[in-house]
Amino acid sequence: MSKHLEHELDRLETQLLTLSAQVEESIHAAVRALENRDVALAEQIIHDDRIIDEMEVDLEEECLKILALYQPVAGDLRFIIAALKINNELERVGDLAASVAKRVRKLAAAPPIDLPVNLRELAEKTLSLLRQSLDSFVRLDTQLAHQVCFLDKEVDKRNRAVEKMVTQALKETPDQDEAMLQILWVARSLERVGDHATNIAEDVIYMLEGEIVRHTMKKKNSAKTA
Amino acid sequence: MSKHLEHELDRLETQLLTLSAQVEESIHAAVRALENRDVALAEQIIHDDRIIDEMEVDLEEECLKILALYQPVAGDLRFIIAALKINNELERVGDLAASVAKRVRKLAAAPPIDLPVNLRELAEKTLSLLRQSLDSFVRLDTQLAHQVCFLDKEVDKRNRAVEKMVTQALKETPDQDEAMLQILWVARSLERVGDHATNIAEDVIYMLEGEIVRHTMKKKNSAKTA
Repeated sequence: MSKHLEHELDRLETQLLTLSAQVEESIHAAVRALENRDVALAEQIIHDDRIIDEMEVDLEEECLKILALYQPVAGDLRFIIAALKINNELERVGDLAASVAKRVRKLAAAPPIDLPVNLRELAEKTLSLLRQSLDSFVRLDTQLAHQVCFLDKEVDKRNRAVEKMVTQALKETPDQDEAMLQILWVARSLERVGDHATNIAEDVIYMLEGEIVRHTMKKKNSAKTA
Repeated sequence: MSKHLEHELDRLETQLLTLSAQVEESIHAAVRALENRDVALAEQIIHDDRIIDEMEVDLEEECLKILALYQPVAGDLRFIIAALKINNELERVGDLAASVAKRVRKLAAAPPIDLPVNLRELAEKTLSLLRQSLDSFVRLDTQLAHQVCFLDKEVDKRNRAVEKMVTQALKETPDQDEAMLQILWVARSLERVGDHATNIAEDVIYMLEGEIVRHTMKKKNSAKTA
């Protein structure tokens, strides 16, 4: 590998790690804003999503530049393709953090309710899944990446629990309808963060093993919700 | 361009067009199943999603093979990167068709309701947006692609209308809660199909103009829902 290409790939990795730290912070902050009905923090997250968007475009341009200039092969090529895809997943997690923040705004405007226990559990599981998928990338750990693909169904299970609870609550406490709908959207967004974490783990496996594992887990998790 | 590369790119284009026809049919069928409470059709769509998944993996492998073997540059490189991304978007539209189909199952189990007019409008707009984004790809039409990016806010507007209507209905007709929640999920899925259609149009613009337009529209559409 040429020294120039090596240098570019190092730079790309640093950019990707910076983006992943920013996105992780954003989704953590969204959960904190939710727990504390913190509208100021929610506004900050919505505003900061633009920074994530710009980082994503820069990173993609970097990938395309390296592909065009160096025409890398084998492992280097796989790394760049994985970077392109992980970049895209991270940006979508950033969007979901902003979505949760927008729901915090609406929740704060509705009469206060206690956050349901299973929503807290869902948030916890999701954050842990995202953490592990990013760790699998940082440490180039396929074992951990495989584990993430497996654990995603825990997140799905908790999302279904929230959905069931909300359906029940809509019947029993109609005055909380507005808040309950927001809870439902938040749960859905968190579940989608779990999906993106799984996609990242799958990209890590592809990068390291050269194998596309997408959909193989999906078949196994056929009980997964819609 | 070598004859071999030319041949591979033609093959790739055919594969992508086949996938896009399959995905378009799948989302159309999902809307038909919804309108007719057709559970058998819904089951078929859920089952056929596997075929779409397999096509996506094959297509991605094809892209990676071409990148590794021919190290294409300039327009050819942009075409392959766009194909990689459009492929991914199409697969997600396929997933959303299956999601809608799963909701049809649940709707069919709940007491029958009339489909809200604004859900029909949303479905119509979404299908038309997807059609136009795929046309912009087939015809290599950047003008049409730019138009799609602009029209996505029409879909978002209709999704917000459904959300408002459902919130109201939850208060006024509590016995329809279950069905109304399913309507809400369907609307959300359709809105996401609109997002993917926009992403495809953005990929077409990148392929033809070499410009990454992502997020520029997002800023313009700042009124967009969460």
